[in-house]
Amino acid sequence: MRLRLIPREERFFDMFVEDAANVLHGARLLEAMLRTYEHPERQAKELFAVEHQGDEISHAIGKRLNTTFVTPFDREDIHGLISGLDDILDLIEEAADTFILYHIDRPTPEAIEQAGVIVRQCELIHEALTKLRSFKALQRYWIEIHRLENEGDRITRAAVAGLFATQQQPVDIIKWKDIYGLLEGCIDKCEDVANIIEKIAIKHA
Amino acid sequence: MRLRLIPREERFFDMFVEDAANVLHGARLLEAMLRTYEHPERQAKELFAVEHQGDEISHAIGKRLNTTFVTPFDREDIHGLISGLDDILDLIEEAADTFILYHIDRPTPEAIEQAGVIVRQCELIHEALTKLRSFKALQRYWIEIHRLENEGDRITRAAVAGLFATQQQPVDIIKWKDIYGLLEGCIDKCEDVANIIEKIAIKHA
Amino acid sequence: MRLRLIPREERFFDMFVEDAANVLHGARLLEAMLRTYEHPERQAKELFAVEHQGDEISHAIGKRLNTTFVTPFDREDIHGLISGLDDILDLIEEAADTFILYHIDRPTPEAIEQAGVIVRQCELIHEALTKLRSFKALQRYWIEIHRLENEGDRITRAAVAGLFATQQQPVDIIKWKDIYGLLEGCIDKCEDVANIIEKIAIKHA
Repeated sequence: MRLRLIPREERFFDMFVEDAANVLHGARLLEAMLRTYEHPERQAKELFAVEHQGDEISHAIGKRLNTTFVTPFDREDIHGLISGLDDILDLIEEAADTFILYHIDRPTPEAIEQAGVIVRQCELIHEALTKLRSFKALQRYWIEIHRLENEGDRITRAAVAGLFATQQQPVDIIKWKDIYGLLEGCIDKCEDVANIIEKIAIKHA
Repeated sequence: MRLRLIPREERFFDMFVEDAANVLHGARLLEAMLRTYEHPERQAKELFAVEHQGDEISHAIGKRLNTTFVTPFDREDIHGLISGLDDILDLIEEAADTFILYHIDRPTPEAIEQAGVIVRQCELIHEALTKLRSFKALQRYWIEIHRLENEGDRITRAAVAGLFATQQQPVDIIKWKDIYGLLEGCIDKCEDVANIIEKIAIKHA
Repeated sequence: MRLRLIPREERFFDMFVEDAANVLHGARLLEAMLRTYEHPERQAKELFAVEHQGDEISHAIGKRLNTTFVTPFDREDIHGLISGLDDILDLIEEAADTFILYHIDRPTPEAIEQAGVIVRQCELIHEALTKLRSFKALQRYWIEIHRLENEGDRITRAAVAGLFATQQQPVDIIKWKDIYGLLEGCIDKCEDVANIIEKIAIKHA
């Protein structure tokens, strides 16, 4: 019996990594979209497909959760982790879509910088999840993701202050505040996921 | 002893249903207010009373929680559920009140559509809670509430994009973005409550 | 053994009180900044240092958590409490910084009122944490913090409605809505922390 259960548990870890790899893929698509901005509509559509893929993975984890007796850690924590990853991807997709909806001509350097922070955070989340099995040495990921959140915060604040300082039209201020806010929201959500991973590590310490 | 404890536990389920019925009542009042918009101030005041009623129910559940030794499920989950229902009603009331504070002449079709989504979600939450006793067959509610959240998301995005596309005055853009955001917030909060119910169901699976 | 463990547990309670005292200090600095508004940049910088001090305290609690076998209550709840206190201070600092970033000439009476509510809530959180050892008689703090959140809500709604009623420039509406929203965010976060304290009290009831 035990021999059969262990592989089933292991499968969860693989699925978390798969989920995080998909989120990372989404983050990289967003950054590429903002950097090139050649076919933004097509790139935003691609992101929509990645988000859909994320829903499939979440659904598969949920299904396995309902049919598995022993899980590697609390069902609640698994729930928190997959819904956190889901939230990151939702925000990435929403940010990309907002560029289209608002007919943005060209991304600002600050928005591209924010996207870079998101990619770096998603890389760290992905890496942390590949090491989750041991429940060890995860704190450095948490610290670095937290530091990136602080950096993102500085970028966002400067970007928003810049909108007012350069006497932009009110309509443009509204649009860009929204976009900076969505990208900042992704960055914060990455920190939330890092906190969940840290919480899991603390429980199993 | 056991005979006495069971009815006390059962009372919790009744109270959740009562709480959700009150939230549903609030959602229906909001939709009616936006559809007719004949006496919006009176209707917003009515909603304020419903919100107050919700506080009373939450308070009664909290009190019972403190004097009951055995509860049907974790105290924390009860806490999460009642505070989630509370949040939905708070946002419904705030959305209605914002129409008054901002002196809105007439609700847009998009806002009415959003209110319709909220009503549908609250109906499903109410129905799910009537079936919570069994901890079974709750997943379809969660799936449908999640689907409605996606639908609400599409309505909101199109509504906000429309504000910019039709060259509205900045002040009107600010007002309507707020209102669409509050209604979207209700829709998201309904999904959060569905997630809590799902989490409870998973724990007891 | 037991003799040694008890003092180690007690140290946690002291650290929560220290953390809350630092948050309260931050709240008082914010209120003083808005009331006098003589050297806002210097005062905002002071708040930045207080936020950094808060990070140090959180870090120390986290470190102790990882090396302590027995804790006074769930590790998760300790985690929730310190990250909640952290969030309050982050928002206080962000609100103060926004006055500088937006080149605000003079705080409105409503913003000063909001800061007063935050101070009162932080006083109550601090006091509740000094009494946490007993896990008793904490409900009155929760009720009062909740009441203050309702009061803050009324202040914020009236302030925002006032922005539109007095025909302010769109850019000023955008700036002040942000500031009122950040201060309101602090008030809400104080209520969240009160809910965590209440949850801990319920668990140990």
